[in-house]
Amino acid sequence: MSQKVLIVGGVALGSKAACRFKRLEPDAKVTIIDQDRFISYGGCGIPFYVSGDVSDVADLRKTSFHMLRDETFFLNCKDIQVLTETRAEAIDRENKTLSVRRADGTVETLDYDKLVLGIGSRPRRLAIPGADLAGVHTVANLKDAEAIRAMIAGGKVSRAVIIGGGFIGLEMAEALADMWEIDTTVVEYCDQIMPGFVSPMFARMAQKQMEKHGIHFALGEQVQSIEGDDAVVAVKTDKGRIPADLVVMAVGVSPNVALARDAGLTIGPSGAIVVDEHLRTSDPAIFSGGDCAEIRNLVTGQPGYFPLGSMANRQGRVIGTNLADGNADFKGAVGAFVVKIFEAALAGAGLSLPAARKAGFDAISVQVAQLDRAHFYPDKAMMHLELVVEKETRRVLGIQGFGEDGNGLVGRINAVSALLEDRPTIDRISNLELAYSPPFSSAMDILNALANATENVLDGRFQPIDAESFADKWAHGNGQYLVLDCRAHQDGEAFACKYPDRWINIPQDELKKRITEIPLDKELILICNTGVRSYEAQLNLREMGIKSPVSLQGGMVTLNKYGVDL
Amino acid sequence: MSQKVLIVGGVALGSKAACRFKRLEPDAKVTIIDQDRFISYGGCGIPFYVSGDVSDVADLRKTSFHMLRDETFFLNCKDIQVLTETRAEAIDRENKTLSVRRADGTVETLDYDKLVLGIGSRPRRLAIPGADLAGVHTVANLKDAEAIRAMIAGGKVSRAVIIGGGFIGLEMAEALADMWEIDTTVVEYCDQIMPGFVSPMFARMAQKQMEKHGIHFALGEQVQSIEGDDAVVAVKTDKGRIPADLVVMAVGVSPNVALARDAGLTIGPSGAIVVDEHLRTSDPAIFSGGDCAEIRNLVTGQPGYFPLGSMANRQGRVIGTNLADGNADFKGAVGAFVVKIFEAALAGAGLSLPAARKAGFDAISVQVAQLDRAHFYPDKAMMHLELVVEKETRRVLGIQGFGEDGNGLVGRINAVSALLEDRPTIDRISNLELAYSPPFSSAMDILNALANATENVLDGRFQPIDAESFADKWAHGNGQYLVLDCRAHQDGEAFACKYPDRWINIPQDELKKRITEIPLDKELILICNTGVRSYEAQLNLREMGIKSPVSLQGGMVTLNKYGVDL
Repeated sequence: MSQKVLIVGGVALGSKAACRFKRLEPDAKVTIIDQDRFISYGGCGIPFYVSGDVSDVADLRKTSFHMLRDETFFLNCKDIQVLTETRAEAIDRENKTLSVRRADGTVETLDYDKLVLGIGSRPRRLAIPGADLAGVHTVANLKDAEAIRAMIAGGKVSRAVIIGGGFIGLEMAEALADMWEIDTTVVEYCDQIMPGFVSPMFARMAQKQMEKHGIHFALGEQVQSIEGDDAVVAVKTDKGRIPADLVVMAVGVSPNVALARDAGLTIGPSGAIVVDEHLRTSDPAIFSGGDCAEIRNLVTGQPGYFPLGSMANRQGRVIGTNLADGNADFKGAVGAFVVKIFEAALAGAGLSLPAARKAGFDAISVQVAQLDRAHFYPDKAMMHLELVVEKETRRVLGIQGFGEDGNGLVGRINAVSALLEDRPTIDRISNLELAYSPPFSSAMDILNALANATENVLDGRFQPIDAESFADKWAHGNGQYLVLDCRAHQDGEAFACKYPDRWINIPQDELKKRITEIPLDKELILICNTGVRSYEAQLNLREMGIKSPVSLQGGMVTLNKYGVDL
Repeated sequence: MSQKVLIVGGVALGSKAACRFKRLEPDAKVTIIDQDRFISYGGCGIPFYVSGDVSDVADLRKTSFHMLRDETFFLNCKDIQVLTETRAEAIDRENKTLSVRRADGTVETLDYDKLVLGIGSRPRRLAIPGADLAGVHTVANLKDAEAIRAMIAGGKVSRAVIIGGGFIGLEMAEALADMWEIDTTVVEYCDQIMPGFVSPMFARMAQKQMEKHGIHFALGEQVQSIEGDDAVVAVKTDKGRIPADLVVMAVGVSPNVALARDAGLTIGPSGAIVVDEHLRTSDPAIFSGGDCAEIRNLVTGQPGYFPLGSMANRQGRVIGTNLADGNADFKGAVGAFVVKIFEAALAGAGLSLPAARKAGFDAISVQVAQLDRAHFYPDKAMMHLELVVEKETRRVLGIQGFGEDGNGLVGRINAVSALLEDRPTIDRISNLELAYSPPFSSAMDILNALANATENVLDGRFQPIDAESFADKWAHGNGQYLVLDCRAHQDGEAFACKYPDRWINIPQDELKKRITEIPLDKELILICNTGVRSYEAQLNLREMGIKSPVSLQGGMVTLNKYGVDL
């Protein structure tokens, strides 16, 4: 007898699960229930609709072949029934029924053999005065998207505040500032953007890139209230007041679990629905995944919460297979991400250094700056990568990067993301085989160089200092240290003249004969362009008996991106 | 006591090994011996120097910080002695000495504790009449590069013939045709370019791309002689005569092994020097790698020959470590490659379908065409990927692709390349976690979709036909088959009108009600734009009792790129 399957939630996971399952069991009866008017849309595209990159909101609801994925599409193309504006109210697990409330208020009871919960997440709203004022929005669905864009297109927004410097916050800030030239400020409670995802270094690089395009940042500021009578006029923080016609709250999401909890399904430590590797909940007739479920973090081995659109799609397919009594599994996630920062991008996979330490790893991280293509090739861009490793085991825990060419950066992150669940050590990355040709990479690709540098740090050969620590010394450590600039005269001399008390220039190839010029009473910081020569200089000096110098990882290029005023 | 290390060959592997070793053992005495005038250059950059992308040949010899890597650089920056224009003539393994002949003819005997052979490869020259005429060049070193560019820049070349349609041949063809507008013909003995590396499909796509830029191809043609009195005037093949002022022979390379063989070192089945996983030859005091050595093909497990520049660099570092009594290993290679084809690229890793079958695998391959970014994002490009898998085990043996955006393509290839040595099955690729954001990928990335399609083929749900077979039927199979175009009317109707005897248009969502319009006496070929709807239609028809139709993988987009005249 053909199966009856009910699917609650039809955005990403639900519609994918439904379609996959119907392809495997064409005679099954599948119904998607969604409380919203629209289903099966590309929610991650919302910032690009707000920016105007995507001209019509309906484009987010279309297939790649331009068919609108509405109720008719699902019925005619997929033989799947869709009930929109219909709220799932309660699951009766014993009788395998779901009671739903239709738009007109009528309540129906639907029976199922198997049930899928793809009920997603909802954006967090700060419980502060003024949070409900007109002009204050979250970014959760197409209705929000249309409302925000209508405000902007209507010429009503000249100043905007984004609360939250995570993915959505940054994408929305770029959307408002770039295409609409709205004076936009990102307010973030932590003292960096993308907290937890990337180190302060890369956060700062991305921030600088956005500042170049006119976006303001208020970091380490807590929003206390939103001011206005009918509509928002300003955001009040613990440090000041920022006028605004539009406020976007992008302070993360919470899993929707009420339906599951009320039905007695197990909820995990993250507050999301617990599922096994086959994406079954604690009730074997009920599957779940996407933003409402928690899965294993494949780096820490612990339960994790990854509200990411692409994951929901892949999980939907696994559920579709298992609805048809297949045995597909979804082991977990390493949390690969990318966010476009104007021409550049910020991306990563696995744990950042703060996240690794928080998870209990005795970890370090090493950074490298290198061109993403052969240095002699005319078209190339600088890339900055950071590898996070466990000290004792040399296991790679994560990678993050900031690159001027986003595609090139994403390719490197993905190569490491692919491996992370196997707990690779740095040797694997040192020897990683990447397709090489001068227009696409260096003969020794930056990924290989990154692992090599990490090995040199772990083996005690390379003693690095990062741009953040350098900036701190530069600002405060007067008289305590000396910068030894190992670049050629034409590059280093100007700095030595400008800062005679704390900067000397001896090119690396002259170190041996000029060793006596180096004062030994101060901490030495070796600097070159990207860190290659200063590492060599470090070894040269050590051979000559000067053991203590540190070498600036990523060199002047990194200081520049990080924004040290030299 | 400090070690004496001699390194024969200083292009990629030798100089890398020398530098790494000196960083580990600064007091060691290291000498690089090279028969050439120039060392430590980016040989893979030669086509880009010929094209003019790299303006000065010295740029290929410089570091990323613009220092010329000549003898002085190695001495002052690295404390490494370099003897150029010096030929290594014989190894006395018992006494650990190497006899060398200097430029002035004097012979010296140098002693060593350890020896490294980075003696590379030499380009094959066809033994045909006229091969020594002026204007006939190979592409092996900077001298060749300068000679070719001097000819072109002197205005002496209006027509060129490239013999060989492999990496170097294609790069040289693009260099000549693109920047210098030379009328260029590639002659290839096989009936496709890049034979063995990619399937005929992708070879043809790349060829078409190059033809659009004015390059001619003579495939399946054997060069018999080169005509001319003093200088070349034409190339004579078994099928015709092609006038030429310049001939570039790019018919592969052979490992240089004379020095090793004469010294009694073991030579492998590929004709290259045998090394173990630590890159030691059969004499533990002698290391080798790069273009003169053979290493394990990590997909087949058999000895392989991979003359690739990036590999030589990574191997050089491993040798440097082991010279210092380290224990680094280099397990082998999967053969990742990329070649730029004007705006597009052709890339791959592991085995192509022909290579897999030749290696004894019962393999199939599946192709997918998909946009490389979210379809609603304005800036995107079409990508074509092919996955090669072993039927029974579902093991992934290789991947190749052709993409309009080379960076995006290389990123996908590298993610699979990273995994190949672990013998992944298709599930791993189905669930591969790639950083997602609409400007960089689709929610279901083409790599995931490729593995999913492959699974559907292996499970018998998706019965594909490829563009090559379709083109063959289209040209010859009149009356035997019917194309069922599953696209919307506005896309499909024109074709149905143009070919009333063999093309009908029933959109996928109308199939059920129009089932009686489908004639059952002919083979049905289902077609849509990229293959998504035709797969769905295949399942729909099967449910309705029509079991036999095949679905065109990659759809109309692929036919277009492949070049079927519809």
